[in-house]
Amino acid sequence: MKQDSVSAGMNGGKRFEQVVSGMQARMARGEWKPHDKLPSVRMLAAELGCHRLTVFRAYQELKHLGKVYVKDKSGYYVHPGGVMEESGSGGIRSLGYRARNRLSEIHRLPADYQFSEAVIDPGLLPNMYFSDYVKKVFDLYPRVLATYAHVQGDEELRESLSRYLVRRHRLHVSPGELLITSGAQQAIDLLCRVLVRPLDTVMMERPTYSSAVDLFLQQGARIVPVDIGPDGYNLEQVDWCMAHHKPRLFYMNPTFHNPTGYSVPEEQRKRLVELAEKHGCLLIDDDTSYDIYFGGQPPKPLFAYDTEGTVVYIRGFSKYVSPGLRIAVVSCRQPLMEQLVTAKSLTDNGTPLLNQKIFLHYFGSDRLQQHLEKLRIALQIRKDVMEEELAASGWSWTSPQGGLNLWIHLGEGVSSEQLLEKARQRSISFIPGILCDPMRKLDSWARLSYSYANEQQIREGIRNLIRCR
Amino acid sequence: MKQDSVSAGMNGGKRFEQVVSGMQARMARGEWKPHDKLPSVRMLAAELGCHRLTVFRAYQELKHLGKVYVKDKSGYYVHPGGVMEESGSGGIRSLGYRARNRLSEIHRLPADYQFSEAVIDPGLLPNMYFSDYVKKVFDLYPRVLATYAHVQGDEELRESLSRYLVRRHRLHVSPGELLITSGAQQAIDLLCRVLVRPLDTVMMERPTYSSAVDLFLQQGARIVPVDIGPDGYNLEQVDWCMAHHKPRLFYMNPTFHNPTGYSVPEEQRKRLVELAEKHGCLLIDDDTSYDIYFGGQPPKPLFAYDTEGTVVYIRGFSKYVSPGLRIAVVSCRQPLMEQLVTAKSLTDNGTPLLNQKIFLHYFGSDRLQQHLEKLRIALQIRKDVMEEELAASGWSWTSPQGGLNLWIHLGEGVSSEQLLEKARQRSISFIPGILCDPMRKLDSWARLSYSYANEQQIREGIRNLIRCR
Repeated sequence: MKQDSVSAGMNGGKRFEQVVSGMQARMARGEWKPHDKLPSVRMLAAELGCHRLTVFRAYQELKHLGKVYVKDKSGYYVHPGGVMEESGSGGIRSLGYRARNRLSEIHRLPADYQFSEAVIDPGLLPNMYFSDYVKKVFDLYPRVLATYAHVQGDEELRESLSRYLVRRHRLHVSPGELLITSGAQQAIDLLCRVLVRPLDTVMMERPTYSSAVDLFLQQGARIVPVDIGPDGYNLEQVDWCMAHHKPRLFYMNPTFHNPTGYSVPEEQRKRLVELAEKHGCLLIDDDTSYDIYFGGQPPKPLFAYDTEGTVVYIRGFSKYVSPGLRIAVVSCRQPLMEQLVTAKSLTDNGTPLLNQKIFLHYFGSDRLQQHLEKLRIALQIRKDVMEEELAASGWSWTSPQGGLNLWIHLGEGVSSEQLLEKARQRSISFIPGILCDPMRKLDSWARLSYSYANEQQIREGIRNLIRCR
Repeated sequence: MKQDSVSAGMNGGKRFEQVVSGMQARMARGEWKPHDKLPSVRMLAAELGCHRLTVFRAYQELKHLGKVYVKDKSGYYVHPGGVMEESGSGGIRSLGYRARNRLSEIHRLPADYQFSEAVIDPGLLPNMYFSDYVKKVFDLYPRVLATYAHVQGDEELRESLSRYLVRRHRLHVSPGELLITSGAQQAIDLLCRVLVRPLDTVMMERPTYSSAVDLFLQQGARIVPVDIGPDGYNLEQVDWCMAHHKPRLFYMNPTFHNPTGYSVPEEQRKRLVELAEKHGCLLIDDDTSYDIYFGGQPPKPLFAYDTEGTVVYIRGFSKYVSPGLRIAVVSCRQPLMEQLVTAKSLTDNGTPLLNQKIFLHYFGSDRLQQHLEKLRIALQIRKDVMEEELAASGWSWTSPQGGLNLWIHLGEGVSSEQLLEKARQRSISFIPGILCDPMRKLDSWARLSYSYANEQQIREGIRNLIRCR
């Protein structure tokens, strides 16, 4: 879906978007009812006075969004909303899936001012160099595409990452305690499947990463929220929740937390591991922005304080190195690792070897450090620009020391959903707070990512957004 | 693990294997008990009179297999068998997982005569050309690694596959009805997660693909087996099972079936779709060897007979084009497709764009057809050689018209498990029938793959195998 944003122009831009939202509006107000046959591409194009290709693409988009369906060759029909939830979706909790669809929809609609996706502007990523590494990989391993990787991950890459984790963080993990996954998303998914059974309790920060909520709900978990603030957690609350709810695990994002950008301070980290050990609760530290710091380096990962196998560490690199490679690493102790490897073998038989080898060679090069230094500067400038423009808004936020997002409080009683609706008219997108809340409230908050749009777009977009208040 | 086979020499070959199996034997007979501290690498190497590196690697291997564990830096310990099943594995049924571990173990141990994995000899795959396509991909899409793919799959690839399916099989599927997955394994996994809830009934062929059994069991399904023979199914049995057990779906492999190589004849295909429609049972046609035919082309996929959205078609290409790319496609109708896309977004956020683009350009080239023609000839020769050598065995099988395996009946009362034990002494591997049986019986059968070993290895290996009778 990120690709669409890059090539938004291909869809015809604003006109296309108007056609799509116009059609959605007609369905919403019942002018077009479920199972109604819709006008042909030709007829609708004539009616709206636009190119047939635009209407065709609008139909494709609506089909993709599940708003219309196609019956053989007889044409387009209105999809009955909600039917999807009932028909054969198995044990899926609709809450999570509906929310996820909302998120996907927001991501998928093209926007000139894209503050919704926490992805980095491809222009800031080291594209040029990668083709060199790819060439090198084919020279070194001519049969790289004829071979499956080891299910647990390429050994050379796991050895390199093991050395890196020792050197960088003094995390003593052997290559056998590392699993390569296709991005951090898959790591959460595998952990969820191995660890969570229906009616298990899972602790999560509030707010948190929306797709993780969906995964845990899908597995039938009950979610207990824990507040996170600029100073981390209230450890008494954490202690009480662990004692009272006996959670199976605490899924957390303690370093440049998504969506708030907060980091849990060093002094809390050691104590958290002790609490988790005391209560037999696994800590899952999902860490995908460690290197995106603007001040000093963030505190060490929780894994550094673990001696009893209480912490699972997910380290993602995709976001700020090469989203297209889909490489993350999970580190944990036995016997959990063995279970994860089995789950990985059943889910996809291993992450593609080519991707692992490309990553290995880039990761081991000096270019990575150079890239990260430049990237931090570029992102900090974008963050500063966004904050500068937001100063006129009257909204409040805590300036984050790293990560990709601002977590904005719009003021009591102000609805971010309503703001988004107005913002869409001006081709601005962001994530309403409700999607980041496992309780699905927090409507007066919004997540704005400063990593994708350039400075000019940020200036214009935020000015226009403020006008939507 | 396939990679291991290629580089088996790196592990030290036979000596390494002897050390590993010797150590396993000492654990099996209780000389080394659960939680016992094991001798150091240095000591064991001295005792066995082999290189320390060999012992070190043996420990790594046993650790990997979950037979030993490491406690901080104090050394290696015997892992208590079975403990894994209890400790926090969530809703996992141990049956499936144990079997899968057996399969993994067999695959992972190096063998000079490798008849266990149904993978194609990398020497028969078009490795040389791929680096050209990779270069082309980087020229065409310089930001391919900076971009996420569309969750449903790259649009260009889905359009190309949609045209291909129309042209080749007259399957009328739009790009919106195709989902790109990271190999066929992931396709089964996604379908399983979206469609199957605990206590649902799933029909499967007997024998069938072992990992599919594991996936369905993991989801809590009850399995109803349906026999498959050289002439396909007994449709009365299928009808009765569907009426009686009301299965949610029938997972099938009707074209060059794994492990038997049988194909369900054309006249049964149409009738099967009618039966499935009548009983409201989804048919999942898992098709990963369509192009590996030795006689005429196989009958059209079941999807060709579907008008009501009763058939889901999984088409894998990885196996015979580029296992390392991990590309398969699922085609199905709405609303199922939408659910699969959501599940895909939660599981890994989309298959890497680079892999899709490389596949796209190779798939669209003339080289694919040339490769397939050569590959069919090479595999048929290997199959013929294996059958020629097996003639002396007294075992029986039906010669398959395609695929990668022979399904051998060793005779009533003969145990393939016992045969495998003897075969391992001669560095021969194959899959005992029990692993292919959802009922975990069929011990007097064995699956022998002729796709990996070369002709010389097949001749020697089969001769040696026959001596193990």
